[in-house]
Amino acid sequence: MRKVVVEKKILVANEEFANKNREFLARLKIPCLNVISSPGSGKTTILAKTIEALKGKIKIGVIEGDIQTDIDAQRIRATGAPAYQINTEGACHLSAAQVNYAFDKLPCETLDLVFIENVGNLVCPSAMDLGETAKIAVLSVPEGDDKPAKYPAIFSRAAAVLINKIDLLTLADFDIEKAKADILKLNKNVKIFLVSAKTGDGMQQWNTWLTELSNKTKVT
Amino acid sequence: MRKVVVEKKILVANEEFANKNREFLARLKIPCLNVISSPGSGKTTILAKTIEALKGKIKIGVIEGDIQTDIDAQRIRATGAPAYQINTEGACHLSAAQVNYAFDKLPCETLDLVFIENVGNLVCPSAMDLGETAKIAVLSVPEGDDKPAKYPAIFSRAAAVLINKIDLLTLADFDIEKAKADILKLNKNVKIFLVSAKTGDGMQQWNTWLTELSNKTKVT
Repeated sequence: MRKVVVEKKILVANEEFANKNREFLARLKIPCLNVISSPGSGKTTILAKTIEALKGKIKIGVIEGDIQTDIDAQRIRATGAPAYQINTEGACHLSAAQVNYAFDKLPCETLDLVFIENVGNLVCPSAMDLGETAKIAVLSVPEGDDKPAKYPAIFSRAAAVLINKIDLLTLADFDIEKAKADILKLNKNVKIFLVSAKTGDGMQQWNTWLTELSNKTKVT
Repeated sequence: MRKVVVEKKILVANEEFANKNREFLARLKIPCLNVISSPGSGKTTILAKTIEALKGKIKIGVIEGDIQTDIDAQRIRATGAPAYQINTEGACHLSAAQVNYAFDKLPCETLDLVFIENVGNLVCPSAMDLGETAKIAVLSVPEGDDKPAKYPAIFSRAAAVLINKIDLLTLADFDIEKAKADILKLNKNVKIFLVSAKTGDGMQQWNTWLTELSNKTKVT
């Protein structure tokens, strides 16, 4: 009983910060996308390539969540975009309070879009409301086509899924049609992009989707 | 304050079951290995190939932990080995109580070795004592060589690390020496195996290590 009460309190505190974040984003009229995946699915590479492709069109900032190191923020900064690194020191996902703090550290007033790269974890971040505009899931081909069925939470909640590393399709036993069907069974309105951040394959559709989202948010 | 008290209670309850599991394994004189990794690193394939390679030498049983589905238990049973599937229904790691329950469902008296395949998650399972003999980490090449530095907890605690999917080394930017150095910096006594469960490369050394562990546990 006590456990339930305490968990409820923690979630209420998180929700307060999530609401603040939503208000902040609404005031600035910019979308914020919370990117969630297993470790090593290619989140940082996708973000770095997206920033480069949209340079001069959409100004992007990134909040990087990692347990340790600032490797990912360094990779983002190398593209010229602003990035703020949060180290969770063991915690398995970012909280809305951490994102709220990071918003203050980024030049958000000058940005058109903010990405949150969550801690690499296909489970825990999916249940946490950060006040984001939408959640984005990344699934990489070497992880296997059974992951949507085995880890349904994030695939049910994502506005878009990027199936990354399609350059490895011939080497992995990955059935694209099965993965897509399993994702759509969980979430019939989700947008699915087949991409290789490495080769650039499929990235244009994703970049167009982001541009449209950014433009739409500006006029609402 | 209340949060700390409650978390302590939960951990004490887990420790009681972990101790029961340790006593059970000591009575049977069999090792139990808790295999931890990101989703899609190849845990199930490693276990299936290990079972096949050691057939007639070491009798292996498997406790499968997944959020949803019994896909992995089915894959293990296809090798002829007994497997018990636990569905955590959203929880991000197995608990000692779940493992205790699963020991009852497997023919442990007839086994030489039990594997626990934990939920695919490089973060949360590493802090949880299941009463296992040792933790085993799996890192797959497509995940990237920066993972030991970014997710140090499991690499610090593992008795052995399998770097899997080395058949993809030429296609991924993965520096084996860097990964090994980062792992050894965290854990100087760890045993590192370079393997491809798919091609069989390097699996013999791992199988020999398991056989020695099983034999050693029998006479202690």
